Amino acid sequence: MPDSQVRLDFGFCTAQGLGPNGLAAADLEGLSRELARVHQAMAQERAQDVLGFWSLPAMGEKELEPMQAQARRLAGLADTLVVLGIGGSALGATAVDMALAGFLRHAFPRQNGMRLFVADNPDPRAFGQLLEGLDLKRTAFNVVSKSGSTAETMAQFMVALERMEKALGHEEAVKRVVFTTDPEKGNLRLLAGRDPYACLEVPPNVGGRFSVLSAVGLLPLMCAGHDVKALLAGAARMAERCEGAGLMDNPAYMFAALAMHYWRAGRNILVMMPYATDLFGLAQWFAQLWAESLGKAQHRDGSPALVGQVPVAAVGATDQHSQLQLYMEGPQDKLVCFVSLDDYGREITIPAMFGDIDALAYLGGQTMNKLIASEAVATAAALAKGGRPSLCLRLPGLDADAMGQVMFLLEAATVAAGHMLDIDPLDQPGVELGKKLTYGLMGRKGFEDQAREMEALDQAGRYLV
Amino acid sequence: MPDSQVRLDFGFCTAQGLGPNGLAAADLEGLSRELARVHQAMAQERAQDVLGFWSLPAMGEKELEPMQAQARRLAGLADTLVVLGIGGSALGATAVDMALAGFLRHAFPRQNGMRLFVADNPDPRAFGQLLEGLDLKRTAFNVVSKSGSTAETMAQFMVALERMEKALGHEEAVKRVVFTTDPEKGNLRLLAGRDPYACLEVPPNVGGRFSVLSAVGLLPLMCAGHDVKALLAGAARMAERCEGAGLMDNPAYMFAALAMHYWRAGRNILVMMPYATDLFGLAQWFAQLWAESLGKAQHRDGSPALVGQVPVAAVGATDQHSQLQLYMEGPQDKLVCFVSLDDYGREITIPAMFGDIDALAYLGGQTMNKLIASEAVATAAALAKGGRPSLCLRLPGLDADAMGQVMFLLEAATVAAGHMLDIDPLDQPGVELGKKLTYGLMGRKGFEDQAREMEALDQAGRYLV
Repeated sequence: MPDSQVRLDFGFCTAQGLGPNGLAAADLEGLSRELARVHQAMAQERAQDVLGFWSLPAMGEKELEPMQAQARRLAGLADTLVVLGIGGSALGATAVDMALAGFLRHAFPRQNGMRLFVADNPDPRAFGQLLEGLDLKRTAFNVVSKSGSTAETMAQFMVALERMEKALGHEEAVKRVVFTTDPEKGNLRLLAGRDPYACLEVPPNVGGRFSVLSAVGLLPLMCAGHDVKALLAGAARMAERCEGAGLMDNPAYMFAALAMHYWRAGRNILVMMPYATDLFGLAQWFAQLWAESLGKAQHRDGSPALVGQVPVAAVGATDQHSQLQLYMEGPQDKLVCFVSLDDYGREITIPAMFGDIDALAYLGGQTMNKLIASEAVATAAALAKGGRPSLCLRLPGLDADAMGQVMFLLEAATVAAGHMLDIDPLDQPGVELGKKLTYGLMGRKGFEDQAREMEALDQAGRYLV
Repeated sequence: MPDSQVRLDFGFCTAQGLGPNGLAAADLEGLSRELARVHQAMAQERAQDVLGFWSLPAMGEKELEPMQAQARRLAGLADTLVVLGIGGSALGATAVDMALAGFLRHAFPRQNGMRLFVADNPDPRAFGQLLEGLDLKRTAFNVVSKSGSTAETMAQFMVALERMEKALGHEEAVKRVVFTTDPEKGNLRLLAGRDPYACLEVPPNVGGRFSVLSAVGLLPLMCAGHDVKALLAGAARMAERCEGAGLMDNPAYMFAALAMHYWRAGRNILVMMPYATDLFGLAQWFAQLWAESLGKAQHRDGSPALVGQVPVAAVGATDQHSQLQLYMEGPQDKLVCFVSLDDYGREITIPAMFGDIDALAYLGGQTMNKLIASEAVATAAALAKGGRPSLCLRLPGLDADAMGQVMFLLEAATVAAGHMLDIDPLDQPGVELGKKLTYGLMGRKGFEDQAREMEALDQAGRYLV
């Protein structure tokens, strides 16, 4: 039976595989001791239910049924679902839907399930194009905001609601909306108290960027026809593996240990580079998870920190012709994490032709699968020859189960890395200032100081070339 | 008359706008002297026609007619064009088409022009989905490779050609193909000598990542119905501005000077963050340009270097909910370049509703345009309050003229930055090793040593968790 487990391959991070820049036995022992302490802390956090996302994969019929009921209901009213959400409310559903339905999922009719759009920018061009392209009578909206005060999402909702009301009337418009929000409080709950909006819950102890396996990700994925039970099953198996104490048995600990080892050694950039176009969404989802969780100015005790590794989303083989030159010859400031697929789900044979042209003949009769897999391993080997470390998440294939595994692994790794940095990976205090200044510019009550501050700034003069 | 020029705003890079991390007058004077030397070198390169891309905007009817003829011919045979190309052969067309036809351009029917797909990965999943989704009888292919030996592109071509031949017969298949390649040599010229393939030229002194304004970008953009003359006109006006000697008048010099100033000060990351979903392709195109041009291990004289700034493609406002926490509180290792639009091309008013809820009332009656513009400037101001520099490329709007301007500006800035780093921005020697190792794995004749090397590597053992 082929191995259906996602594996982390760290051969090109070892002294054997990489040379002097690789980890020696002593490095691994040191990290192993450090992760033993992290393990204690995380076990305690799990026991105290601080890590709300950890128990999501264990959800059963009872928790899933309200989502399934909404998915069934919406499918009876509409053939398209638009998610209105931003950041953690958007990236998880996009990552899984892109992986399973394809990067080009909007270009061609779907086999089954509703068409899914995730509208994650209050950008009049992109949002206008979307609204005008849709048949609003056959469109449902899933508004995802824990607080119901996210300016971007709520502005989009207000615009969409008005247009739906014009097309269908108030009552029918309300029927085509599902709120995914806090179980009790917030503005969406307030609105649901006035009109009969359907509501699903985001557990209070699950933050946006860890929410893909909650209703935030699951409702859109159910509507789009994906096998969410397989997604949860894969995540559940990975959760079990990530509860192991030993660095050598726990892929999340190993991922965190390697990333933080190299971060401490000056590699402030972590490239996530799947060798599949359909996994670009996974790389972007990871970029939020890693950036927002680990980019922090304070340690847990409030003392100053200035930490965080910059995630970069790339795609192989494509970015071999874009970013690889820099990765091969630029400063030694990067760690690359490849994502490989043992099985691409379909095989394409390159026909034998042009046999008399050396530079083309070798391709004929071989599969495109072999070509891209060879490029992945050759690129890792070429980097290693230059003393440049890489790791590889090896996926058996691209299905819901594998996605559940890899996403849970990366969530657990992010929490472990947060402990290694001694910061809180679950908060995001840094974004408040920008929000307040925006409120000032938009004239929101109570933000008059910020309005004045922004006005003064503009008067400071512009520097234009 | 509103200003139709793209402007570079560097207020948040100055001591006045940013505080101690900003450039003082003395810094600007030093950079000004350095750029004067760069100017001499670039003027000489232009005179010697080393910078082939510089004269592309001046192309006239005579140079454009062969492309237009092919675009007309293909439009008579097909309603969809698939570009087979990777890296510089793909990113320019994608950037402009996404900007002008929208990020969601594949989801809805086009107003005019052919549907355009850019297939830039020999990935059996994504390429298989594309080929199976298309009606091959109504599809044309543009194969873009200077050498005609790019493994990824040629493998895709061989697969596509076989399928077209099955659907249409050899002769009709050949009619639906245009090669964009070297004027004289290479495998595509060889094939065009055997079968009557139409050919367009990539000027020998124009490299892939600087080729968007050659036939490489222009044929697909013509097929897709875009105004390439306006694109060239915008680029031509910018070329003129970029020939100015003074730092304060030349936006390309200023961009390079700021980026390299901060790179030398330890900011090894340059975030390109347009506040428009449709400009994500521009950010990805820039990422190749900046990474592949500046990531180099050797100076011009062959002495060792280890330089290059890591470009990161982001999108506002979306990534305020993904990357901004890291940009606000993480290490001081980033410079952010925003791209703003004075005019989004359409206006969406947020309807007045929920007037009794403070957190929503302020949105009603305002435009989404004002919201996203406020977020852009508030984010820059919030970063500046933390001593974090940013610049902003201010586009009057999103049309072909503005795209021509901004792309040329960034090309010219890349060459200037190459001079500041004293490396050759036009080569990419670092990617050869990975190619050779791939050839070894694929069994190409003459690469037996690489095959053995890769075999030995595999036997070194795997490290799996």
